[in-house]
Amino acid sequence: TAAAAAAEVTHLSQRDAADIDEQLMGPLGFSVDQLMELAGLSVATAVAEVYKLSEHTRVLIICGPGNNGGDGLVAARHLYHFGYKPFVCYPKRTAKPLYSGLVTQLESLAIPFVPVEDLPQDLSGQYDIVIDAMFGFSFHGTPRPPFDDLIQMLVSLSVVGDSAKRPPIVSVDIPSGWHVEEGDVSGGGIKPDMLVSLTAPKLCAKKFTGPHHFLGGRFVPPPISSKYGLELPPYPGTSMCVRIGKVPSVDISSLRENYISPELLENQVMPNPFDQFRSWFDEAVTAGLREPNAMALTTVNKAGKPSSRMVLLKGVDKQGFVWYTNYGSQKAHDLSENSNAALLFYWNEMNRQG
Amino acid sequence: TAAAAAAEVTHLSQRDAADIDEQLMGPLGFSVDQLMELAGLSVATAVAEVYKLSEHTRVLIICGPGNNGGDGLVAARHLYHFGYKPFVCYPKRTAKPLYSGLVTQLESLAIPFVPVEDLPQDLSGQYDIVIDAMFGFSFHGTPRPPFDDLIQMLVSLSVVGDSAKRPPIVSVDIPSGWHVEEGDVSGGGIKPDMLVSLTAPKLCAKKFTGPHHFLGGRFVPPPISSKYGLELPPYPGTSMCVRIGKVPSVDISSLRENYISPELLENQVMPNPFDQFRSWFDEAVTAGLREPNAMALTTVNKAGKPSSRMVLLKGVDKQGFVWYTNYGSQKAHDLSENSNAALLFYWNEMNRQG
Repeated sequence: TAAAAAAEVTHLSQRDAADIDEQLMGPLGFSVDQLMELAGLSVATAVAEVYKLSEHTRVLIICGPGNNGGDGLVAARHLYHFGYKPFVCYPKRTAKPLYSGLVTQLESLAIPFVPVEDLPQDLSGQYDIVIDAMFGFSFHGTPRPPFDDLIQMLVSLSVVGDSAKRPPIVSVDIPSGWHVEEGDVSGGGIKPDMLVSLTAPKLCAKKFTGPHHFLGGRFVPPPISSKYGLELPPYPGTSMCVRIGKVPSVDISSLRENYISPELLENQVMPNPFDQFRSWFDEAVTAGLREPNAMALTTVNKAGKPSSRMVLLKGVDKQGFVWYTNYGSQKAHDLSENSNAALLFYWNEMNRQG
Repeated sequence: TAAAAAAEVTHLSQRDAADIDEQLMGPLGFSVDQLMELAGLSVATAVAEVYKLSEHTRVLIICGPGNNGGDGLVAARHLYHFGYKPFVCYPKRTAKPLYSGLVTQLESLAIPFVPVEDLPQDLSGQYDIVIDAMFGFSFHGTPRPPFDDLIQMLVSLSVVGDSAKRPPIVSVDIPSGWHVEEGDVSGGGIKPDMLVSLTAPKLCAKKFTGPHHFLGGRFVPPPISSKYGLELPPYPGTSMCVRIGKVPSVDISSLRENYISPELLENQVMPNPFDQFRSWFDEAVTAGLREPNAMALTTVNKAGKPSSRMVLLKGVDKQGFVWYTNYGSQKAHDLSENSNAALLFYWNEMNRQG
């Protein structure tokens, strides 16, 4: 289970994290541009996985002067392309071409850069998500202005009682102001709702107690894994991020209430229902749905009691829909008593049922 | 529909494609490293969307000397991380640090580099997918050795009658050897099964007749779209690629035949079924499933005829599962005649039904 996996994830010391970065960018042949692009993309995909666009639009990304800030700038660009409205607060810019390039990219998307002094003292109401990309694993010491105040702004945000009424805080790799290994030493630091660890979690991540912990940076090669004995969870499919840690419980009634039905007009439907099915089915297959041929089959016994289960469609022709079962199954038994059955296809990713 | 959208996708001339690249890497602030990383990732995700890992493992990537070859090298790395087994044929290496870095990254993953002379004349049997990353939109003239022979190897591959018995060919941006605007002028060129256009399709893509056409390169900023009047389809969710063109028809009976049930042992199940439901439900929510609260509800009328439809769960407690409907609906009418009903949750992405 996800919770069991969390116990086995390796946590890196500050020194090992720095070592790994040096090796990736030295003997392992990566450029900073590449690693930052993949790290920022991981952050954006993890944010989009937890905070759906339908409920969260405006994202404030607070970027520090170093690599962590760069990851934030990249994440802002991808969030824009995913449909969010990013705002960037980037008070201490770095002169390197990589960073000025990242800024130029954001400017071409007309993403607003917000000066620190224009931020409202209470970020609630103005933003739906706040991303903390101030300091990463190479940070030590005490945050200097204006980051000390920015951190305090996030601290006040996280002490608001009702988490549903304030924007969630997402920290990139390290909650800014935390000790990279010891965590929130004073107890008065940022309490992020989400942490996106990059490459591998750092030691401070053991102290993270928020509901969402993700891993990003799907590029760790075997020489690094074996040298540092890294145990990392597998990434699913082609995802750039994976949840680590236990899954939080949710309030079912807060989930979306009603289907937004796609428009389906009578003149868009083919006269022959089997032709229409075939056309929809082909779209479902090519949209890459898993098991588009899965259908809920309901049979009813003689007492009028229905049973549903998923079966796989094996074919369709003018005589009907074909699936396989054996004569000893409950479905077969029900059908011998009552030949009425119902089929239901549910192609959720396409907002379509049939 | 997908087919209608295809008609409106813009196709670029060779000159406009070169112009756009220059602007992206000049005034728009991108580095080659970044664009190549995103392009190669797009190719890898598009390949993974069409050619599932369960049926295709070994991928031969044939890389040319320029940017198109670089996209191939990046795609090889991501395909490795997605679980495929890539093999790279890269006969004319480029001395630039970016390219040698990409090679070093692949070497650290122990991805084999196959010399041209070690390739079998018939690639079938040895590889499950062949990616053509030889020449891109800046190519003109006649392919020189060894690429002339490599192209012929792919031509012979695509004339094998039964497409199920040979590895599919995926071309990156341009089918190598094709004229960038006119397409396969001689008619004797590569006939790829899949084309992954990058940034926007080039004019030759209008002549592409294979079943799978994708667009990748989710980074086009508004100044480029407006200057070149680009009509591009929206990318779904956080995907790095999107299908363009019409969806091919498939043979339903060739789809997967049986469920591979995940192991579910009696001692792993909670004694209280509602607790178990809650635990599974929470996992489904946090795994990011769309509408985990969607369930198939089947009611049965007094004639014993079942009807199924999807409804949304609104809550669950010791008294049962709660959903909403109105008293005039067919469900309500059926239930007044026969209080038996069946519920079915189908969390396909988790291989779970309940």
